[in-house]
Amino acid sequence: MTDTISGLLDETHDPSRTSWVLSANGHCDFPVQNLPLAIFSCARQGPRGGIAIGDAILDLSALAESGLLHSKALVAAQAASDGKLNRFLALGSGPRRALRRAVSELLSNPAHREGVETMLYSQASTTLHLPAKIGDYTDFYVGIHHASNVGKLFRPDNPLLPNYKHIPIGYHGRASSIAPSDRPVRRPLGQMISPGDTAPTFGPSRRVDFELELGVWIGNGNQLGEPISIGAARHSVAGISLLNDWSARDIQAWEYQPLGPFLSKNFHTTVSPWIVTQEALEPFRTGQLARDLADPRPLPYLWDDEDQATGALAATLEVHILSRLMREQGIAPFRLSKTSTANMYWTMAQLVAHHTVGGCNLNSGDLLGTGTISASERGGFGSLLEISSGGQAPIELTTGERRTFLEDGDEILLSGRLEAPGFVSIGFGECRGIVTGARSMSGLFPPSLVMAGE
Amino acid sequence: MTDTISGLLDETHDPSRTSWVLSANGHCDFPVQNLPLAIFSCARQGPRGGIAIGDAILDLSALAESGLLHSKALVAAQAASDGKLNRFLALGSGPRRALRRAVSELLSNPAHREGVETMLYSQASTTLHLPAKIGDYTDFYVGIHHASNVGKLFRPDNPLLPNYKHIPIGYHGRASSIAPSDRPVRRPLGQMISPGDTAPTFGPSRRVDFELELGVWIGNGNQLGEPISIGAARHSVAGISLLNDWSARDIQAWEYQPLGPFLSKNFHTTVSPWIVTQEALEPFRTGQLARDLADPRPLPYLWDDEDQATGALAATLEVHILSRLMREQGIAPFRLSKTSTANMYWTMAQLVAHHTVGGCNLNSGDLLGTGTISASERGGFGSLLEISSGGQAPIELTTGERRTFLEDGDEILLSGRLEAPGFVSIGFGECRGIVTGARSMSGLFPPSLVMAGE
Repeated sequence: MTDTISGLLDETHDPSRTSWVLSANGHCDFPVQNLPLAIFSCARQGPRGGIAIGDAILDLSALAESGLLHSKALVAAQAASDGKLNRFLALGSGPRRALRRAVSELLSNPAHREGVETMLYSQASTTLHLPAKIGDYTDFYVGIHHASNVGKLFRPDNPLLPNYKHIPIGYHGRASSIAPSDRPVRRPLGQMISPGDTAPTFGPSRRVDFELELGVWIGNGNQLGEPISIGAARHSVAGISLLNDWSARDIQAWEYQPLGPFLSKNFHTTVSPWIVTQEALEPFRTGQLARDLADPRPLPYLWDDEDQATGALAATLEVHILSRLMREQGIAPFRLSKTSTANMYWTMAQLVAHHTVGGCNLNSGDLLGTGTISASERGGFGSLLEISSGGQAPIELTTGERRTFLEDGDEILLSGRLEAPGFVSIGFGECRGIVTGARSMSGLFPPSLVMAGE
Repeated sequence: MTDTISGLLDETHDPSRTSWVLSANGHCDFPVQNLPLAIFSCARQGPRGGIAIGDAILDLSALAESGLLHSKALVAAQAASDGKLNRFLALGSGPRRALRRAVSELLSNPAHREGVETMLYSQASTTLHLPAKIGDYTDFYVGIHHASNVGKLFRPDNPLLPNYKHIPIGYHGRASSIAPSDRPVRRPLGQMISPGDTAPTFGPSRRVDFELELGVWIGNGNQLGEPISIGAARHSVAGISLLNDWSARDIQAWEYQPLGPFLSKNFHTTVSPWIVTQEALEPFRTGQLARDLADPRPLPYLWDDEDQATGALAATLEVHILSRLMREQGIAPFRLSKTSTANMYWTMAQLVAHHTVGGCNLNSGDLLGTGTISASERGGFGSLLEISSGGQAPIELTTGERRTFLEDGDEILLSGRLEAPGFVSIGFGECRGIVTGARSMSGLFPPSLVMAGE
């Protein structure tokens, strides 16, 4: 096994390493080469940090007290022992890497089995929570095919705006309504306007959509007024998750001018609860592929040769839908999309450098969404808005059901795999959510007004 | 003294009530009828809650331990004793009102002077902090003349977009970069594009601006998926402050399509540190004035007769500038603007009802900005973008200096007064910030790229 140019591969990436936790060996999201972190709780224990191994979770609070860890690894496990990972994330890469190396050894060397086994929980017996208190959430727009596809719906001749290839377009999102995987997603009420009408109506959104994204967790942040340089930016990223930026397209179309999306995006965002760390990502780094040679070179604060050579990721992402009918009939989920992170026009480091260049401060536990990562072809589109051509072309599911947008009872499942020749591939775990019926409108206004309004 | 229709006036609003803290009597922001809350610290004490009275601060932590408070008032003071007011804000109006009544009695009845005086600090000896941990920050756009003025710069014939009078336009802002009054505001670096150019340049913004707004603090919030009705929405507002939404117009113009303002707004936001509570606002409630009879009636979830009758505020707001030259020559600040909250097209209750109608959850300590509150005439415009007609018409200051946008060393001071016949008027305290020079670009990229980039 040889070092890559990043020089950050070590024994934890060794493809021959296996675990005495047998479910971690063979094809799974959480082999011993992954070791992502989450916050979990169970009947016996309150929320605390844990590391995934196969179908189990290693309790970091118990590990911190076990005497099996020392120095930096111990500091990291202690910081991950309470109900949020923010303190752990703030430690940066040194302690994070030390913990990874120690845990990799403990979970792979059978000599430790007896001492460590008592600190394992079955994932099936636990509840997963948000891994951190998210101070601020920002959503970007790095999927160049998504930007083109959506732009085409509005501007067929000029889909990409002039700023797209110069600036990582982003906007602030809502942190409070981000939830971990497997929480129901209530269809939002809101204002929308029908074509040709001059006044809006109010009711449940009829165009609820998913968006396939990565979530990027901030480790060390920066002080207000002190930008993070492109060269240092990678070190501010602690790890990544899958992210579903649920969207209500009819609400969005009516509200978004002139200040951008608001209620159409803030009713719910689902993030997969496991943080796949920077260290686990090392084997899957690749060069930036989405940029054409003819494209303008970004301004210097966004440009770093090493980032261009190794700052992108080799990940395959998929979206499946499981309708109520499929669930009832025991039919497998239907794949709506398969795409690759090679379609990201900007790297994670470029997002961090841009976000902070004006002085804005990022804090540990902040979350950045990449924006929808569509491929160039319909089979890889990352939203129903694109798949159905703005609602014009329904897609037919295995059951014969057709969808333009999501119906109540539809479950959306995001999944992803990181793969590279000579390495054990890893995954993200689950990112799923079922759309449930809208809340009743009763109680929102005096009964006498209900009919006048609709 | 008689009750108003809101029925919420009590002895704390009695105009004949004075304080034994003599600086609170006569014209000042903090008479005994105001009693706003902030977080303060001083050489001897860490951050804790306090109530302003004249030029002093009453220490709520000491008061909670004094034995002078009971039941709900004691619960409120205890919740305000630590370094953030979030727990206090979450209590809602009952305990807040009880504390107000108790403190009003303690500070006005000379019999309590001996017991309470030891809990007072001179404001001059203290540092004021953010009053709460702001989970999420949302900025609205309720100033109809501001929306028209800005719209005119881009669309002379059609300044207001079709949605403006149906929907309280808002977008998510950045919580992490909100700072209390009197912290320096560093001029941001960023991308901008010159007219006629096809590629952007990078450097310090040349169009740094202020925006005159109110900040609205959330008391009780709501659960994800459970909207707050328009009838209940007023009770979710704990109080208000002044807010300066610093903006970089050149960065904004280049970045804001299609997802809205981002780095142009998130480099710094200044909020006045005193929360003027809902209870203090009671005498200054008025009917909604900015809406024309010919305007469309909003959808029922935004409409409440009592809110239309009493949900607006009678406040006068001013903006002054103090240039470096003025400071050096001892010249008084120059007034750039004088306007009124009557120019708000939507009430605070309408903002809360709209924000939550799709299910988005508000939390205690969240902050809503109203958006810039311009009057219809130039003397009442709430930003330099409007005052200078987009940079075309400089304004001349007392010193003969001219300004289109802000220069390094310029200080912006927001102030406001709430006034109503038969009541003692109250103010907000200071909301000020000096623009300082941009950070050096060195260190942001490899030296070899500096010249290539500029």
